[in-house]
Amino acid sequence: MPKQVVPEAARRRRRPTRQGAVLSERLIIETALRMLQEHGSSGLTARRLGLALGADPSTLYRYFAGMDQLVLAIGDELVGRALDGWKTRGDWRADLRDFGLRLHRAYLAHPQAAVLTASRVSGRAREIAADEALLALLRTSGFPDAVAVRIYHAFIDQSLAFAALDAAALALPPEVRRADEEMWDSTYARLPAETHPHIAATAGLLAARMNDSAYPTALEMLLDSAAAQLTHATGT
Amino acid sequence: MPKQVVPEAARRRRRPTRQGAVLSERLIIETALRMLQEHGSSGLTARRLGLALGADPSTLYRYFAGMDQLVLAIGDELVGRALDGWKTRGDWRADLRDFGLRLHRAYLAHPQAAVLTASRVSGRAREIAADEALLALLRTSGFPDAVAVRIYHAFIDQSLAFAALDAAALALPPEVRRADEEMWDSTYARLPAETHPHIAATAGLLAARMNDSAYPTALEMLLDSAAAQLTHATGT
Repeated sequence: MPKQVVPEAARRRRRPTRQGAVLSERLIIETALRMLQEHGSSGLTARRLGLALGADPSTLYRYFAGMDQLVLAIGDELVGRALDGWKTRGDWRADLRDFGLRLHRAYLAHPQAAVLTASRVSGRAREIAADEALLALLRTSGFPDAVAVRIYHAFIDQSLAFAALDAAALALPPEVRRADEEMWDSTYARLPAETHPHIAATAGLLAARMNDSAYPTALEMLLDSAAAQLTHATGT
Repeated sequence: MPKQVVPEAARRRRRPTRQGAVLSERLIIETALRMLQEHGSSGLTARRLGLALGADPSTLYRYFAGMDQLVLAIGDELVGRALDGWKTRGDWRADLRDFGLRLHRAYLAHPQAAVLTASRVSGRAREIAADEALLALLRTSGFPDAVAVRIYHAFIDQSLAFAALDAAALALPPEVRRADEEMWDSTYARLPAETHPHIAATAGLLAARMNDSAYPTALEMLLDSAAAQLTHATGT
């Protein structure tokens, strides 16, 4: 809450630090996430954000050097939400799977924010914490450094890539998304076996899975390969 | 070319069908791809497209029922470009790798169009042709139907997911993208070993690869798993 709308009495009751706690980085990020949800990425402007927070837009620059820094902080927040509650249990494969699914879920809970941030590198605290934790998991599980970094890179970017892809579908207008999803029944399932024998032979299987995210399957395939690479590297 | 700017004499020389050949689906799609490249996805409107084509915007609706249909056609065009020149050589793993890299490359050549279309299902001719060809490749290589469809799903969506992710990075303003890329040197490489031992130990490896697409690595890992699944399914 900005000074000008806080009654003088209330303001005097507050200690200086309390002021910072009222308009905080966290409150700005959470408000920005809500605005993205409601208005899409074009709706996220300093002016609108200031209005929603009841603050002068210029106040925001005390917390973020610019809107792009806020975008990075939003991405960092989504990574942080995936990290919260993630506990390693001593089984690298289960732990990596768990983190990947958490990350994908954290981004898909905010499709517009996901589309905006999945491809960014924030260098902020929680992104760094996630990277350190994932590298720790792989290196302490016996992956040699070069293999650990290669698998970390493929794992994290695959998770973010599917987050971007699946979030883009979720961010479509509902009727557009529905039309896309119906394509497997309306078009693919009706192709004749004479012209499209392979689609015709698998039309039921296609319709049953193509509208679900392929992320869990692709993740499992990545983990299959990582396990084989670990076996190869350690000779066990 | 619209009637009003064609001299009367030229117009009389043309046969009616010639008119359609001048303003064609293909010309509209290619012009739209150029506009996306130059103005970003917010720049693609019927009005601007009409101006660029020298045609009344309403004329476009003879070719596409609406702008969303044009977006689907753009996606189909990118898939088609990946398919053009792709030849199977009787080695499913090499063939699948080749198609994946072609698809990723076709999308990255048009980052704005890629971001707009990677998550869409067009049900158009070239998307259908690609799906039929990929399913044919897997089914004739001995993958049982359920496995073939599962791997096809993971493969195609992984390719499109990385296309979406990597295209989003390419579509950033150059100075923003540069700042993100420098993060591995400016931030990660400077974290002290006391607080971030695993990042510190691998900082050189991270800086060397994190700004490249992880798609080729993730694709190879998917192919590793597919090969293992084929061995398992066929018992060879």
